[in-house]
Amino acid sequence: MPEIHQLIGKVHETGASLYQKDFFHTWHKTPQELELVLQVAETLKLLYLYNVSTRCFDSGLAVSQFRDNSTRTRFSFAFAANLLGLTVQDMDEQKSQIAHGETVRETANMISFLTEIIGIRDDMYLGSGHTYMKEVGEALDDGFRNGVLPQRPGIVNLQCDIDHPTQSMADLLHLINVFGSKEALKGKKIAMTWAYSPSYGKPLSVPQGIIGLMTRYGMDVTLAYPEGYGLIPEVMQVAGENATRSGGSFNVVNSMEEAFKDADIVYPKSWAPFHVMQQRTEMLRNRDSEGLKELEKACLENNARFRNWECTREKMNLTRKGKALYMHCLPADISSVSCKNGEVAADVFEQYRIDTYKEAGFKPYIIAAMMFTNRFGDPAGVLDQLVERGLHRVRR
Amino acid sequence: MPEIHQLIGKVHETGASLYQKDFFHTWHKTPQELELVLQVAETLKLLYLYNVSTRCFDSGLAVSQFRDNSTRTRFSFAFAANLLGLTVQDMDEQKSQIAHGETVRETANMISFLTEIIGIRDDMYLGSGHTYMKEVGEALDDGFRNGVLPQRPGIVNLQCDIDHPTQSMADLLHLINVFGSKEALKGKKIAMTWAYSPSYGKPLSVPQGIIGLMTRYGMDVTLAYPEGYGLIPEVMQVAGENATRSGGSFNVVNSMEEAFKDADIVYPKSWAPFHVMQQRTEMLRNRDSEGLKELEKACLENNARFRNWECTREKMNLTRKGKALYMHCLPADISSVSCKNGEVAADVFEQYRIDTYKEAGFKPYIIAAMMFTNRFGDPAGVLDQLVERGLHRVRR
Amino acid sequence: MPEIHQLIGKVHETGASLYQKDFFHTWHKTPQELELVLQVAETLKLLYLYNVSTRCFDSGLAVSQFRDNSTRTRFSFAFAANLLGLTVQDMDEQKSQIAHGETVRETANMISFLTEIIGIRDDMYLGSGHTYMKEVGEALDDGFRNGVLPQRPGIVNLQCDIDHPTQSMADLLHLINVFGSKEALKGKKIAMTWAYSPSYGKPLSVPQGIIGLMTRYGMDVTLAYPEGYGLIPEVMQVAGENATRSGGSFNVVNSMEEAFKDADIVYPKSWAPFHVMQQRTEMLRNRDSEGLKELEKACLENNARFRNWECTREKMNLTRKGKALYMHCLPADISSVSCKNGEVAADVFEQYRIDTYKEAGFKPYIIAAMMFTNRFGDPAGVLDQLVERGLHRVRR
Repeated sequence: MPEIHQLIGKVHETGASLYQKDFFHTWHKTPQELELVLQVAETLKLLYLYNVSTRCFDSGLAVSQFRDNSTRTRFSFAFAANLLGLTVQDMDEQKSQIAHGETVRETANMISFLTEIIGIRDDMYLGSGHTYMKEVGEALDDGFRNGVLPQRPGIVNLQCDIDHPTQSMADLLHLINVFGSKEALKGKKIAMTWAYSPSYGKPLSVPQGIIGLMTRYGMDVTLAYPEGYGLIPEVMQVAGENATRSGGSFNVVNSMEEAFKDADIVYPKSWAPFHVMQQRTEMLRNRDSEGLKELEKACLENNARFRNWECTREKMNLTRKGKALYMHCLPADISSVSCKNGEVAADVFEQYRIDTYKEAGFKPYIIAAMMFTNRFGDPAGVLDQLVERGLHRVRR
Repeated sequence: MPEIHQLIGKVHETGASLYQKDFFHTWHKTPQELELVLQVAETLKLLYLYNVSTRCFDSGLAVSQFRDNSTRTRFSFAFAANLLGLTVQDMDEQKSQIAHGETVRETANMISFLTEIIGIRDDMYLGSGHTYMKEVGEALDDGFRNGVLPQRPGIVNLQCDIDHPTQSMADLLHLINVFGSKEALKGKKIAMTWAYSPSYGKPLSVPQGIIGLMTRYGMDVTLAYPEGYGLIPEVMQVAGENATRSGGSFNVVNSMEEAFKDADIVYPKSWAPFHVMQQRTEMLRNRDSEGLKELEKACLENNARFRNWECTREKMNLTRKGKALYMHCLPADISSVSCKNGEVAADVFEQYRIDTYKEAGFKPYIIAAMMFTNRFGDPAGVLDQLVERGLHRVRR
Repeated sequence: MPEIHQLIGKVHETGASLYQKDFFHTWHKTPQELELVLQVAETLKLLYLYNVSTRCFDSGLAVSQFRDNSTRTRFSFAFAANLLGLTVQDMDEQKSQIAHGETVRETANMISFLTEIIGIRDDMYLGSGHTYMKEVGEALDDGFRNGVLPQRPGIVNLQCDIDHPTQSMADLLHLINVFGSKEALKGKKIAMTWAYSPSYGKPLSVPQGIIGLMTRYGMDVTLAYPEGYGLIPEVMQVAGENATRSGGSFNVVNSMEEAFKDADIVYPKSWAPFHVMQQRTEMLRNRDSEGLKELEKACLENNARFRNWECTREKMNLTRKGKALYMHCLPADISSVSCKNGEVAADVFEQYRIDTYKEAGFKPYIIAAMMFTNRFGDPAGVLDQLVERGLHRVRR
């Protein structure tokens, strides 16, 4: 399996370590650390295809905490844990969403006695999701330092209010596979644009994750949205700085057409305006159901003004040779399929449907790589061992 | 363990393969294929008793999707997956029951990236359950063909609107064990009869599964129900054709007594009339709760006309030497135990209680055998390997 | 690993066996049997720290049935099962809480075909929880005796109406670790006292478990509660008899201060009065929601009369040298943190916070030890084997 040894060689070459480091935002990781995750993900994927077992835990738990509904991330997390030999235990709160002091500290320890990884999704409350994850992390530090926990479980951000790193890293791996290499992405134009949806309140973390990550690879990242649908200012700033550093660019426009112009990649996706999410967070906290209803109504009315922000064949024709790669984190609001008017026309989606499925298919491996690099100080060494062990995943 | 080698020999002798074939209806399988499932189930059961580990997956998921409540099938599926080394991940929809296009296609792929088996129960909507499973299967074919999925997960029907193969096959294995052999079933009379229940809307798949399967083994299958409680015509036809081919018979009568007369086996169980299930499906789809209430009322009133369709000692005395084997898929509506008037008298049920538990005890192995034969092209070979490995399931 | 061999030696020295014995109440176990559980728990904990895999099941299920909400016991059960190689399958009823005849007998068998352990929490109904567990046990006996079940799963009481043995045994192991040995506990004064809480209806099983267990180790156990908040008389009697036999003492007082006086350990925790739990049970059974509301109101008003039953710094100063160990089963009602007025002052809790986390940290190992000793006739021998195998839990 020379291909595998080559990949493991690349893991080794990164010289990076994410040992015991939580994965919150991609922009807090070095290029080498990101490269490490990508290479480990590729290696795990190839080992799976070669039927080599990558079970490196004989027991141990991976705790998931979904503070928002989820099917695909839930499954991706389950795939990843299972691939490494960890058993998923779901932490089902059914309680107030807002964390307060003592509870978080205590609960974080109680669910961690024999736990290796905690995956958290908390994306509904602006200013709260990332804060919550950090709080959990500090509680784990405290418990480990004081001898409560025999190990300090690693945290994987499965989507917060700021970033969605398992999504953006899977998206990046997809791009690398489509365009052939990381280097090939340099100078490519990606249009991360708002798109119309008949629902409201979708989190900002996907577009933020994309502009925060793709700007690091020398891409020309264009963010497009109708006036009033801006993202968190801090992330906009990160994207700008990234672009400068990487030799790419980061532009913001208010026209979908302009963004699509000569784009190599388009990522049309709906999200709620920043200030609406702020209001919504406040109302959810105060359980102001009247206010929420009115907000929804006002938002949908406002959304409706931008119904033409749809990824149609016409708009696709504006892209480079009319052949840009269409991306989506799924599920997409597909016009006349899943809704009357949506983010994307049915024929465009159908053309790229398989591509979007493949894009999603990288996520289990990205999550597994985040788990793996968090637990092993010498990931290349452990991968070597797994290859050497040569245990079949499925008996033959 | 000569007994085990003998059993594996029988697996080999079937010459059959269910590799990569979904298991939807028993009547779409050849006699050899059914034999294969039975023999693998027996082998796995014996290996369990001998404390030989049959874990043949070092990792991998078995996804379950229960579109209807379930305890025993849920546990049987969990037992089966665990026995082979697969981890169960439940796909919990809490969404509309009616599948539509894009969603099914996409979801089927999203839950399958590292999945070996998908078990589905969808028995509430006439004309919908089997259709849904086929749709999932086509989506998986599509995903596998297009390189989205590294493997094409197998589907096991855990009960649809038409057949309940894990039940009927477990029932068959029970009969083989009680009567000594498959051959001994030839000429035996089995009475699959409707019975009174104070509830309505029970699926037709159990009686359909029984008449569709038992008619293949030269049995005299008598189906009995009060006028108006007929089954799906297509399955009735299948049963008739099976009987002709196998040298058995298939008769329909409208009297429980007549069915019980000289029967070797009785299977009294309530179900809803075909046309009621059709109306109900329509109403559920239209969320017509008023209509549903009225339908329930009318049905229960109609049911009440047949309260005498109860499996009593008197009726049991009509069977061959008064000693027919009583069967039930459980839970039974037991008169004066779980309800006032039900399907079976308390003393009759008590006499056969342990038998019905044993009957249920075959299901985990039948499901495991369906999983196993779907994933391995050479089941006898893999079983041989497992015996040779000689790993204890529980340390000693 | 001489330390481990020493511990396994102690397991051996107990000469006890809990093979095939359900664990319901600590007071039905011999001192040697309790010692066995403690030593196995310590050994499993040390093996975990030494990264030695204690997976002794290659497959098998551990069924959990929580008839009351639970996070920490649910996780402790999951940790324990995973540590031994068992997969948790949750039995989710969402049905009537009150068990009746046939259903229990049948369900117990249906969930047990390939099951090693059943853990049950049923603490809400006075006179019902333990009865239910016994009923499950008898059903399993019946199923095993009649050849329905290939093995008789063991039952672990995860909290009933009478005892909470996984809690009290974890508490005991914590005390042994804090004070250095079981022998060091002799003559120590432990104050198990009622404390004020703004909620009502908390089960009695924790204080009952504590007085039923700690009285066996020669401790001076003082139970304190406001008039009217007595425990189940039978358990009070058990505690008295235990104390006589062990050379300790068991006293009941109606003053928190008196209980704290010169105490080495304090365990201030709220519970509902015995007679209130009886009324409540009746009302829950009759679904008397009006009655329940009134009962809650009356109880909270009565509770409020004892708001001064709070574990404050002042009261802590009454303990031996003001340095008693504070214990709690968690979560505690912490004044001005999780509620306005509660069981314990914030500064006292904070001082002992880490201690209470460590106390909780013994529970996974206690449960694992209960599972382990139930399934293996020669626990020391199996532990020896695991050490000899030397398989790493996490690859290195």
